[in-house]
Amino acid sequence: MENIFSDEYFMKKAYQEAQIAFEKGEVPVGALVVVDNKIITRTHNLTELLTDVTAHAEMQAITSAANFIGGKYLTGCTLYVTLEPCQMCAGALYWSQVGKVVYGAADEHRGYRVMGGKLHPKTIVVGGVMGQECGDLVKEFFRQRRK
Amino acid sequence: MENIFSDEYFMKKAYQEAQIAFEKGEVPVGALVVVDNKIITRTHNLTELLTDVTAHAEMQAITSAANFIGGKYLTGCTLYVTLEPCQMCAGALYWSQVGKVVYGAADEHRGYRVMGGKLHPKTIVVGGVMGQECGDLVKEFFRQRRK
Repeated sequence: MENIFSDEYFMKKAYQEAQIAFEKGEVPVGALVVVDNKIITRTHNLTELLTDVTAHAEMQAITSAANFIGGKYLTGCTLYVTLEPCQMCAGALYWSQVGKVVYGAADEHRGYRVMGGKLHPKTIVVGGVMGQECGDLVKEFFRQRRK
Repeated sequence: MENIFSDEYFMKKAYQEAQIAFEKGEVPVGALVVVDNKIITRTHNLTELLTDVTAHAEMQAITSAANFIGGKYLTGCTLYVTLEPCQMCAGALYWSQVGKVVYGAADEHRGYRVMGGKLHPKTIVVGGVMGQECGDLVKEFFRQRRK
């Protein structure tokens, strides 16, 4: 039997979170933290609502997952996020020692790879899962904002 | 008359925050945000208390200052922090477009400069203010922890 719990399976859930952000007028990025195929937190960007540049989806996901686990380190966790993390979020993920990061669309302008940030050397990174859809949602958001 | 509101003046206050962190068993880093020579927030590292790798002094300072100001951007603010920001905090400061960052001790291992992070191009950066004292406090903390 095929494993239904693929990276695409979870990225679809993160994408749903990004859609919720979109509807709220937030830059549409969604994130999940998964442990043993169970979603322990689902979040989306809330920088506008909270008037706080630190309220990226990943930051909230890290804080929330640590609360759930009862420990600071997320070594057994996978973080799914629809957009490549920025250097702030990469830094937070670095400190969390998260086991795996799966992102959707690459961020050519503010992604951690172009900004020069680093994930933890033990973190497995997979990029480009549902990259087209995740990226299109962000593009559509900014297209509507420019109107 | 000499201006009493020097960078050293405010760094001493940030150092007091770091001392409070030390007494709590937190890695001793303190931070302030100052606008027009007024301290609008003072914070210290709370990663242990909150079980949250994102609870660095700077992150809390940014969130708190934005709440105080009622806006996300800290262009008119100076952030004082006793230790060079890590890449996470540098990333958050980048997004905040903070006007000026003054730090105490350089962090040769996890500072944003060695990790590859970036502050905003418009942010003025001053390092090494009370660098010796600020660095000694961190060293003493880890010396005691190793015992």
